[in-house]
Amino acid sequence: MKKFLDDDFLLTNETARTLFHDYASKMPIIDYHCHIIPQEIAENRKFDNITQVWLGGDHYKWRVIRSCGVDEDLITGNKSSDREKFQKFAECLPKAIGNPVYHWTHLELRRYFGYDGVLNADTAEEVWNLCNKKLQEDGMSVRGLIKQSNVRAIATTDDPIDSLEWHQKLKDDPTFDVKVVPAWRPDKAMNINKPDFAEYMQKLAKVSDISIQTVEDVRTALAKRMEFFDSMGCRASDHGVDYLMYNPATEEELNAILKKGLNGQALTQDEIEKYKYAILLFVGRKYAKLGWVMELHYGALRSVNDRMFERVGPDSGFDCIATYCCADGAAKFLNELNNTGELPKTIIYPLNPTDNAMVGALIGCFQGTEAEGKLQQGSAWWFNDTKTGMIEQMTSLANLGVLGTFAGMLTDSRSFLSYTRHEYFRRILCNLIGTWVENGEYPDDIEYLGKMVQDISFNNTNRYFGFHV
Amino acid sequence: MKKFLDDDFLLTNETARTLFHDYASKMPIIDYHCHIIPQEIAENRKFDNITQVWLGGDHYKWRVIRSCGVDEDLITGNKSSDREKFQKFAECLPKAIGNPVYHWTHLELRRYFGYDGVLNADTAEEVWNLCNKKLQEDGMSVRGLIKQSNVRAIATTDDPIDSLEWHQKLKDDPTFDVKVVPAWRPDKAMNINKPDFAEYMQKLAKVSDISIQTVEDVRTALAKRMEFFDSMGCRASDHGVDYLMYNPATEEELNAILKKGLNGQALTQDEIEKYKYAILLFVGRKYAKLGWVMELHYGALRSVNDRMFERVGPDSGFDCIATYCCADGAAKFLNELNNTGELPKTIIYPLNPTDNAMVGALIGCFQGTEAEGKLQQGSAWWFNDTKTGMIEQMTSLANLGVLGTFAGMLTDSRSFLSYTRHEYFRRILCNLIGTWVENGEYPDDIEYLGKMVQDISFNNTNRYFGFHV
Amino acid sequence: MKKFLDDDFLLTNETARTLFHDYASKMPIIDYHCHIIPQEIAENRKFDNITQVWLGGDHYKWRVIRSCGVDEDLITGNKSSDREKFQKFAECLPKAIGNPVYHWTHLELRRYFGYDGVLNADTAEEVWNLCNKKLQEDGMSVRGLIKQSNVRAIATTDDPIDSLEWHQKLKDDPTFDVKVVPAWRPDKAMNINKPDFAEYMQKLAKVSDISIQTVEDVRTALAKRMEFFDSMGCRASDHGVDYLMYNPATEEELNAILKKGLNGQALTQDEIEKYKYAILLFVGRKYAKLGWVMELHYGALRSVNDRMFERVGPDSGFDCIATYCCADGAAKFLNELNNTGELPKTIIYPLNPTDNAMVGALIGCFQGTEAEGKLQQGSAWWFNDTKTGMIEQMTSLANLGVLGTFAGMLTDSRSFLSYTRHEYFRRILCNLIGTWVENGEYPDDIEYLGKMVQDISFNNTNRYFGFHV
Repeated sequence: MKKFLDDDFLLTNETARTLFHDYASKMPIIDYHCHIIPQEIAENRKFDNITQVWLGGDHYKWRVIRSCGVDEDLITGNKSSDREKFQKFAECLPKAIGNPVYHWTHLELRRYFGYDGVLNADTAEEVWNLCNKKLQEDGMSVRGLIKQSNVRAIATTDDPIDSLEWHQKLKDDPTFDVKVVPAWRPDKAMNINKPDFAEYMQKLAKVSDISIQTVEDVRTALAKRMEFFDSMGCRASDHGVDYLMYNPATEEELNAILKKGLNGQALTQDEIEKYKYAILLFVGRKYAKLGWVMELHYGALRSVNDRMFERVGPDSGFDCIATYCCADGAAKFLNELNNTGELPKTIIYPLNPTDNAMVGALIGCFQGTEAEGKLQQGSAWWFNDTKTGMIEQMTSLANLGVLGTFAGMLTDSRSFLSYTRHEYFRRILCNLIGTWVENGEYPDDIEYLGKMVQDISFNNTNRYFGFHV
Repeated sequence: MKKFLDDDFLLTNETARTLFHDYASKMPIIDYHCHIIPQEIAENRKFDNITQVWLGGDHYKWRVIRSCGVDEDLITGNKSSDREKFQKFAECLPKAIGNPVYHWTHLELRRYFGYDGVLNADTAEEVWNLCNKKLQEDGMSVRGLIKQSNVRAIATTDDPIDSLEWHQKLKDDPTFDVKVVPAWRPDKAMNINKPDFAEYMQKLAKVSDISIQTVEDVRTALAKRMEFFDSMGCRASDHGVDYLMYNPATEEELNAILKKGLNGQALTQDEIEKYKYAILLFVGRKYAKLGWVMELHYGALRSVNDRMFERVGPDSGFDCIATYCCADGAAKFLNELNNTGELPKTIIYPLNPTDNAMVGALIGCFQGTEAEGKLQQGSAWWFNDTKTGMIEQMTSLANLGVLGTFAGMLTDSRSFLSYTRHEYFRRILCNLIGTWVENGEYPDDIEYLGKMVQDISFNNTNRYFGFHV
Repeated sequence: MKKFLDDDFLLTNETARTLFHDYASKMPIIDYHCHIIPQEIAENRKFDNITQVWLGGDHYKWRVIRSCGVDEDLITGNKSSDREKFQKFAECLPKAIGNPVYHWTHLELRRYFGYDGVLNADTAEEVWNLCNKKLQEDGMSVRGLIKQSNVRAIATTDDPIDSLEWHQKLKDDPTFDVKVVPAWRPDKAMNINKPDFAEYMQKLAKVSDISIQTVEDVRTALAKRMEFFDSMGCRASDHGVDYLMYNPATEEELNAILKKGLNGQALTQDEIEKYKYAILLFVGRKYAKLGWVMELHYGALRSVNDRMFERVGPDSGFDCIATYCCADGAAKFLNELNNTGELPKTIIYPLNPTDNAMVGALIGCFQGTEAEGKLQQGSAWWFNDTKTGMIEQMTSLANLGVLGTFAGMLTDSRSFLSYTRHEYFRRILCNLIGTWVENGEYPDDIEYLGKMVQDISFNNTNRYFGFHV
């Protein structure tokens, strides 16, 4: 029997162990998509206790606790203390056998806090004390955590109207040598069906100094902001779209739709689609010009529980997986960008794992000379960010495309302790490849394979996005 | 090489073997969803021969035989003898390598008939003789089979208009100490599109003593029956719905739809949906009040072969898997129940395994304090009730939720020999967990894990449904 | 560690090795569905160099190269030499770890060219020279390749208007004893929405000597051609349909639709469906009469990249996987054929692997006495023709049906070097079965199992199609 989470965790054979320990583990990290707050890096935030840094914003953990029948107050409420919340999590965790939270949690306790034990109801007190003491150390500030994780570059997720002031501060700060750049997420400019759309457009108009009456005005405003983002080092966009679609409209139609949206009038599903499509097409073309990567995350149903939305707001663990069927729309959308030579480098992340094969086959239809693997299937996303999910995504990608060109892993996280997810990914990658080699399905050329896992761990990402770190 | 179906069948490592033999195998059974006939328990039916008890109502076996090109008469016909039918099955079975019927069949021969050999064309005669002789023993009556299987509680599947007379007889019978309770299956009250709807409503009106003119009358009648079922120990409903949906309507609309339905007039798909949704919403709320579990089985296309339906009727192996996309409807339906605090404990069983991840993510959005794992993804159902199907369902559940709260297995069977499916499930469960532990993916805490597999095998079911056995 | 691609490639246990080496590997091949050109067999074509025979028409390889960011000219262009193209492929191939192209490529180099090394940028020159020298040998002509591959029968893919002159020449040629028969692919007669439909109908009218004004005329013309194909030994049809559907229409409607189609007028999706459905129903019934097998390949989006379609035409690697949901249509279509006793033997190939379970459950509803496994789920098709894809297809088939009746593998290839895909398939089949046996999930009856893998490798195909070779 292997010891729980030992040095060879997830590595079941000699080739896998060599690939991980001698090659992959040594590589730095580029976290090209995450949700951490740049202000916290700029201000080098420190944390009072483990609940703050660990449970404060982590909806993965919240879902585990909720599934055990725990009252919401002990999860996100105000009446319970941080210590009580930590206890509840520790009580629930052991039941979550097979859940990635179980692995992430213990990886983080080992790597950042030096705790080699197992977290449960009985050990909660010792873990609480140990972690909180450790958090007082200098190396446990936000910057300390980033540095000790061997992170070279981070791309945050930012709204077009964001001033990027904290990014500017970080650029100006010679004491911190990790590259922190914004990523462009224009969802609010596309969500014409949301109640705050008109208000958002006013803000966009103001920050871009463009009066917004027509769709062309929206485009001009966004283009100005994209150039600003680009000047701040932005290399990628990020879109949270319901599904991928193709729904062209005339400029006249689009302007009529925009007018209704700005007036808060009800829109049909077709009108919403047309507007969103027009904007997505425009920004996609602009990405191509700027050399940015277009990241398309699709297939979520968000905030489906009204009562909990009112209580704890969005991104708090009440999202799930949609069942859209959008291969046709996806192909036509990429084709339209491609027809004018304006298809940017693109990464597609389906949330429903049933779309793995569809996306894997699709990207092979639109490759180009701009990059190795110009079109990519993204790393197993969100609910798929599990051992099996990653194995399935990489196996599908290998079957249908070229794994050696894969641009690799990201955390997608709100926490500064999530960099161990890169370790988790690399172990699974090395084990997958190692197993193939040991089974005689690929030649035993450790030098070549070592380079391949290093590429997928770091070099491909660096080249693909153009981080130059 | 492991011997076929030996004591360590499906157990590939030491931890798995310990978990199964020392913990899971000793637990009693609660068969919380099945299709056995309560009258046969009450009357303690005995069987003349193995074809009667084994092939008489088992569409899994029928499909195997049909796939081998055998004439229907040798399967469900009247011209062939029971011996001939048994021979045909024995001839076909060896070709069904990898099919769960192959495993179930041999498990049943071993556990109930003490036959350690392999069933095929050559051994059919000896198996026929051995089984038929054995069936004459007292322990092989319906009650004997239930008792020797260590069953503590059974929930049958019953129509709202059922008198539950056999359940009453069983309650009144001090000689049989296994709890046999009804489960509520109101499909006929929802299927307004079926030709026998009006006739069914008359029966419902009569049995509930409510004149049915309006949808509110239907509700009142159903509520009365639910209270009767509750008084008879009912703990759960069971719904065979096409798909999960959200389609609210006004009471006026609903009454107009009902009127058409009662008059046998044609209804649109939208009207059918609206009526079904209204009833489902009502009974769901009532389940919450009664503390019942709502079981939603969805995604089947039933009786798709007209000629065979005319010949052998429903539930005879001519059903298949639908390709609905209903994440959005499912989420909105649960949300509507939840909005008024009337979401009952709910188990969702998708028939299409492509919905595993969707359902797994969805249930995490509606957990509550009423139970650990208030919302459940059901055990691999029907076509998924296979080794791979169960591994996939439990792996998906573990990835996305909390496996330790899983309410476990059921037979869903029409046969009294199917309790070995619980053994099959427990072996797979123990092997899954054992493999994780042996691979260092979970701590080697056999006592804790032993309790976990006992919970999933029995205790969780007992608590979740409130069987108190 | 196992050596790369050694004699026991993909065979992980003793039973698997025995089954493959002693049973499966010795069986001849029936390639019942492929896209090779009969003229090339009749003329016994020889190849100048390895790029011609290997890269000339192989869109699987093209996709690998494109995914590495290579300019199209080095793939399908005119400016680059065959040697340059070969070099580029050799450079890209090592990155395609886990892709079946990696395995196919090396299997073909070993089996046909005796090259035991690994193809990459460094070895490209030696492989180029070795292969081109080898290609000059007599045994490396088209007929030589077929004979040394132990092929007994081949079914090509042919249009209803084809003269089948090359098939006739092959029938008349006593020097070549491999059976080469046509297969009937009437897609062009069904694709009423395509611009060349009217022109095609004129050709069909001419070759069948039937003036085509009505849908009944189309039927009569097709029936005449089917009888001609049958006289030439045809045993099967092949349909590339978008999805499976049920959309009956009156003869009047159909004639109006046909008229529009012949006049090049625009058609609605509903009209297109109705016409296609009517023709499919007709030919399906005729297949039943002729004893042919109906092969339904569905679920592709074809030629989705306009720019590349203009440059390199169809079937060049710009196709992908659709996301249709057609269980209901599929079931109703089969039912309609079955209702009149005119459902032919049918093989369904879904392109989206998410339909595996759906198809597996569906075929079990329409079995019949015409053949063992009258309804079949086809071998893992196209994008699924991978190690994992085949394991998933066979596991699903085994779970839901009877694996022992499986009609087995085909190449679906345009190349004469693809027969090693049968070897690849047989290794995977033997390993799947061997693993079950070694794990104690099936009795260790090597003689019976040996016969089973021989049946699936050859005998079932021979019987099912009626090749009589």
